[in-house]
Amino acid sequence: MVIPLERHRGAAPLSQQVVAYLRRAIDAGRLPAGAKLPPIRDLARDLGVNRETVADAYRQLAVLGLTESGVGRGTFVRPGAAGASPGKPASFGGPMSLSRAAAAATALPVVDYAAPAGAVRLERLVPDPSCYPLDDYRRAVDGVLRGEGAALLDYGDPAGHDGLRRVLVERLAHAGIETSADDVVITGGSTQALAIAARAFCDPGDAVAVESPTYPGLLATLASLGLRVAPVPLAADGLDLDALEGVLARGGVRMVCTMPTLQNPTGITTDVAHRRRLLAIAGRFGVPVLEDDFQHDLRSGMPTAPPLRALDRSGLVVHVGTVSKSLFPGPRVGWLVAAPAMTSAATALKRGMDLTSSPLAQAALARLCRSGAYDRHLRRFMRALAERHASAVDALARHLPAGSRFTRPGSGLALWVTLPDQLDTLALLPAAKQRGVVYTPGTLFYPDARPSSSLRLVVGAADPDAVARGVRALADAACAALSRPRPRPARADRVAIHV
Amino acid sequence: MVIPLERHRGAAPLSQQVVAYLRRAIDAGRLPAGAKLPPIRDLARDLGVNRETVADAYRQLAVLGLTESGVGRGTFVRPGAAGASPGKPASFGGPMSLSRAAAAATALPVVDYAAPAGAVRLERLVPDPSCYPLDDYRRAVDGVLRGEGAALLDYGDPAGHDGLRRVLVERLAHAGIETSADDVVITGGSTQALAIAARAFCDPGDAVAVESPTYPGLLATLASLGLRVAPVPLAADGLDLDALEGVLARGGVRMVCTMPTLQNPTGITTDVAHRRRLLAIAGRFGVPVLEDDFQHDLRSGMPTAPPLRALDRSGLVVHVGTVSKSLFPGPRVGWLVAAPAMTSAATALKRGMDLTSSPLAQAALARLCRSGAYDRHLRRFMRALAERHASAVDALARHLPAGSRFTRPGSGLALWVTLPDQLDTLALLPAAKQRGVVYTPGTLFYPDARPSSSLRLVVGAADPDAVARGVRALADAACAALSRPRPRPARADRVAIHV
Repeated sequence: MVIPLERHRGAAPLSQQVVAYLRRAIDAGRLPAGAKLPPIRDLARDLGVNRETVADAYRQLAVLGLTESGVGRGTFVRPGAAGASPGKPASFGGPMSLSRAAAAATALPVVDYAAPAGAVRLERLVPDPSCYPLDDYRRAVDGVLRGEGAALLDYGDPAGHDGLRRVLVERLAHAGIETSADDVVITGGSTQALAIAARAFCDPGDAVAVESPTYPGLLATLASLGLRVAPVPLAADGLDLDALEGVLARGGVRMVCTMPTLQNPTGITTDVAHRRRLLAIAGRFGVPVLEDDFQHDLRSGMPTAPPLRALDRSGLVVHVGTVSKSLFPGPRVGWLVAAPAMTSAATALKRGMDLTSSPLAQAALARLCRSGAYDRHLRRFMRALAERHASAVDALARHLPAGSRFTRPGSGLALWVTLPDQLDTLALLPAAKQRGVVYTPGTLFYPDARPSSSLRLVVGAADPDAVARGVRALADAACAALSRPRPRPARADRVAIHV
Repeated sequence: MVIPLERHRGAAPLSQQVVAYLRRAIDAGRLPAGAKLPPIRDLARDLGVNRETVADAYRQLAVLGLTESGVGRGTFVRPGAAGASPGKPASFGGPMSLSRAAAAATALPVVDYAAPAGAVRLERLVPDPSCYPLDDYRRAVDGVLRGEGAALLDYGDPAGHDGLRRVLVERLAHAGIETSADDVVITGGSTQALAIAARAFCDPGDAVAVESPTYPGLLATLASLGLRVAPVPLAADGLDLDALEGVLARGGVRMVCTMPTLQNPTGITTDVAHRRRLLAIAGRFGVPVLEDDFQHDLRSGMPTAPPLRALDRSGLVVHVGTVSKSLFPGPRVGWLVAAPAMTSAATALKRGMDLTSSPLAQAALARLCRSGAYDRHLRRFMRALAERHASAVDALARHLPAGSRFTRPGSGLALWVTLPDQLDTLALLPAAKQRGVVYTPGTLFYPDARPSSSLRLVVGAADPDAVARGVRALADAACAALSRPRPRPARADRVAIHV
């Protein structure tokens, strides 16, 4: 494709010229619905421009609703896009346009997880709903509404419900974290805690060190805040600390995000020596560490090194927790624990974001904890998880093709499977769905969206038989693919949002 | 105060030098606890630097926990600040520092609303808790938990619970807004809707046109996002549209925020001609309009012009609603209705902020609406509000000193009282609290924090007798102040956060 570009001083930005040309082509029907746009790198080469220029133009077209893209498929003209931009009344693309944050947020890749009925769904990191202590929770909600009444329907405190904060202080003490209710801020799930910490420490354009692979939601949150990521590889025993030192030494990193316990997606839990060295490195560079301890309670009763926050003497650690993975995510309750200056900032930022979290949801969780129902649930759920991990490990060892490997975290909702190198798990997904299993392709966990032969399997999301069936389906799909000529690796079309 | 500053190339930024000097002075005890720092403008003049440089330094000191400031009082060294920064382990002020967003959020003024027991509290914009339909709500929560069960404890859809979105589509249709569930995004109260819209349309540094006076929470949200505000005066019949045109003509404004119905704080509701002209102006400049219709349901049964969104043909209007003022705020449920490109962006931004809002809270609200309980409550609450407004108007007309005036919105939670010019309602607050009433001083509603003789009185927060008592206390305080020599106007020390 050749697009005439004006490069003289005073000409419109190149990406705008590309957008204008492609909009005209789509409006005039020269690029009909379903037409595939050239890959970013090809068009950039043809036009002699930076790839980011083309990526930016493609993002704008998507925001205008003129194109759509799928991971590994490319960018296509949307049905009904022809003639849409001049005639449609609701055009958000005339003189008005969306922000860079909106463009970054909407440019995120979408994987098609739709699967035949009966497929075992192991792609979402949620506990199996059949394990929810539903009756206990209903009683807790009704009980606090009867007991505390109207106060739970008012705004409440931006820092959180005092009763829940006091419960958390006690639970944190069991984990070795000495704190007070004043240092705890309740958030809308741990995602809001991550967003708050990122906003408290980083200005747009700053970099955040993240594990590679890491939780895709973290990458999405950072991207929508205009932050860059500095990926640090994950070794078998946790974050590669030499690599972390190198990244921090280069400067510009304002926060390190890490999941030392039951890391997402790998399930890795680091030991105390690793934790101490991580803290020493962060302390030397004076960089805050966000400890996302989202699966803390899923190590109940297992020997585990203390949280970073318990080992820290520098005040650099922000500890984040949630019940989303150990109980259920619906109440949207997470928390962060930090030094006073940070908790003041967090409370103020929380207020600007959504004022408060529901006092009713917080009080109900506090009652569930105080009544012992949460710990009873945890004991049951830990047993259920152990069965599911055993079932998964047994089936994986038995059925996966030679050259595969997988982590054995023993607990947590997920484990990480790596198939033989020549397989690409994004390309394999359609066949796996047909055979009856849905998983998360590894590429989504890498900040650079590299092709990956790994995948995340949420064994905590289904019962042991279903987990075994799902593993079998995965193994079948992998073996079938290996018996065919080598497929071309699919690359997630994550258009350079994590610059 | 004289601070030696290095101004050569390569010197540290001036604000950092000011921070460093003041920290040393505080640490060494040369500025003891309780010492007042010079006013920003004075120090800026003495040092020959920009006021923003000093304001930035003062913000950093507050973030470091070394100073505190109160509206209209100035900035003071905190007790215990001396020696705090070098010795304390949890220092967030060494090599690490908080972001500009955190500094802006924590620099917001704090008014001391603590009052003697028995004082009538009319400062918070919340419905009187004695009007909450508590039993109906408890039944709704329990009913949906029994009916929909585990699905309400999962994450749910980032765009919102489908049942609630369908209820809202029907209710919006009654207001003249034709929309579909796809165009509705559920948010964590209307504050999150404002934050999402601001992030969708504006990049840091962009300006947002706001009413002056307006909701202080809006100013806080915009400040924490690094956005500037362009104040547009409010006339007796709503936003001054000539002034709005002037502001938009100057450029740089990416969004207009307005509350056409029962504006906060004034209670003004605009007519249809005003609404059409506002839309025409916004359309001419292609600037999106955020219609914060937060008290829509408190005009039930009263003749009211259709919402902007119902009159709009351009797709420029984002309509925001909530039940926080008509029911109660605890469930943290608000919504926005917009054109498809905006709702996609809003959903993506919401996902990055906190993934989803509680499906249980949304389903319970949907059931409360479907069962008729919400409308029954509204009818009761509208009668209760009418009584409170009547009581307030009667008492205001009877007791306020000559030269006072007040709005008569007839509904909504609040009205706006303007005392004689020589009074400053921030300075008057302590005396009013002593006499038995708490209100919100007018200065907080002005983006430029100007001294104000106005105040907001939330007559919907107490019963009619209490409202009358509160008004009487206000009038007594005002009359007493008028009989004394003229006080010096207090100026909210809002340290240039709305640059």
